[in-house]
Amino acid sequence: MSDEDQRPPERARRLPRAVRERQILDAAVRVFSQHGYHSASMDEISEVAGVSKPMIYTYLGSKEDLFGKSIQREATRLLEAIQAGVQPDLPPDMQLWHGLRSFYRFVAEYRESWTVLHRQALTVGGGFAAEITAMRTRAIELVAALVVAAGTRKGLGEQTEFSGPGLAAALVGAAESLADWALDHPEISDGVLASWLMNLVWLGFNDLVEGQVWKPSAG
Amino acid sequence: MSDEDQRPPERARRLPRAVRERQILDAAVRVFSQHGYHSASMDEISEVAGVSKPMIYTYLGSKEDLFGKSIQREATRLLEAIQAGVQPDLPPDMQLWHGLRSFYRFVAEYRESWTVLHRQALTVGGGFAAEITAMRTRAIELVAALVVAAGTRKGLGEQTEFSGPGLAAALVGAAESLADWALDHPEISDGVLASWLMNLVWLGFNDLVEGQVWKPSAG
Repeated sequence: MSDEDQRPPERARRLPRAVRERQILDAAVRVFSQHGYHSASMDEISEVAGVSKPMIYTYLGSKEDLFGKSIQREATRLLEAIQAGVQPDLPPDMQLWHGLRSFYRFVAEYRESWTVLHRQALTVGGGFAAEITAMRTRAIELVAALVVAAGTRKGLGEQTEFSGPGLAAALVGAAESLADWALDHPEISDGVLASWLMNLVWLGFNDLVEGQVWKPSAG
Repeated sequence: MSDEDQRPPERARRLPRAVRERQILDAAVRVFSQHGYHSASMDEISEVAGVSKPMIYTYLGSKEDLFGKSIQREATRLLEAIQAGVQPDLPPDMQLWHGLRSFYRFVAEYRESWTVLHRQALTVGGGFAAEITAMRTRAIELVAALVVAAGTRKGLGEQTEFSGPGLAAALVGAAESLADWALDHPEISDGVLASWLMNLVWLGFNDLVEGQVWKPSAG
């Protein structure tokens, strides 16, 4: 607060609106990730951003608006990070590998984004949860396309089209749950996390495609 | 409501408290699963249960109390259903198989329980989300024990102890996400769902244990 007081008002006013808005959203994501939506206060967001509360209301609206815009920005960031990693010309397993690495790199680098997207957004409910659900559905569809493509390559078209969407839902759930676990284990690198999943899931899927099937042995 | 009016009051009063409480909780789970916590009304719960609102408050407390007790009861039911399916003398893969089948059978049979536990409880936040998180952690620990046991059998002690908890978190996330997907695909049986996961995850894990490793091929 004292820094704010010493800053010449002209300089503070001269910052472009886009920069101010970014400062506010950065602060909002930090405060929401620490306290959750319900306990987060506009006072703290104002203090962390170094922007007055009236200016926050003028630029970005209420706490609810701020939360919605935080989720939107972080979801876009996450999807862009993953898409930047995926190279569509590579075989399906390599696409998945690059996508997973980008995902885990993002979660490690932007812990607060992931916390807000995964842990907080669902606890608020309503429209926010619906937005997250829509994002998950898109992720599952993308992975399902990879699974079906891999199955079709091996001549398993119909069979993979039947199970592909279910397997993709399982894979996305596995990736998210491991990301959540990784928040408490920052010593494990994105490469190690992604290769655990590839070994767990992709090798199993490969076996399935090759006709090797797990069957109950007894009981 | 008209049935209630025609019922002789003596008979209504003679129902034991435990039966009344079960009726109320059954109604609460149904209404919460349909409307979510925030939109659910005590009026509707009272109507579905055929129990007056004052009696609900006397027996089980406020809407918040009712939601907490619903979650507690359904979580206990779910864990008991899974435990009843698991046979601890069987090899790890068969334990997992039976556990998964019991899980998917429960989700198919008690759709409303799973909806309240998985979709609704997190949207309310606070203590409820903490309770669900604790239940998930317990599930991950149980699966981690199976994974480590399977790894140790194959002489992979240390390596599986390192990755076991992460793999278990991935597996539990995969199982939950597939359960959520299955809510919209009731035509897929619990046996098929469980065998998808066994083939996806367990075969992959088996390969890993056998020393077969997925490695990036290029890029």
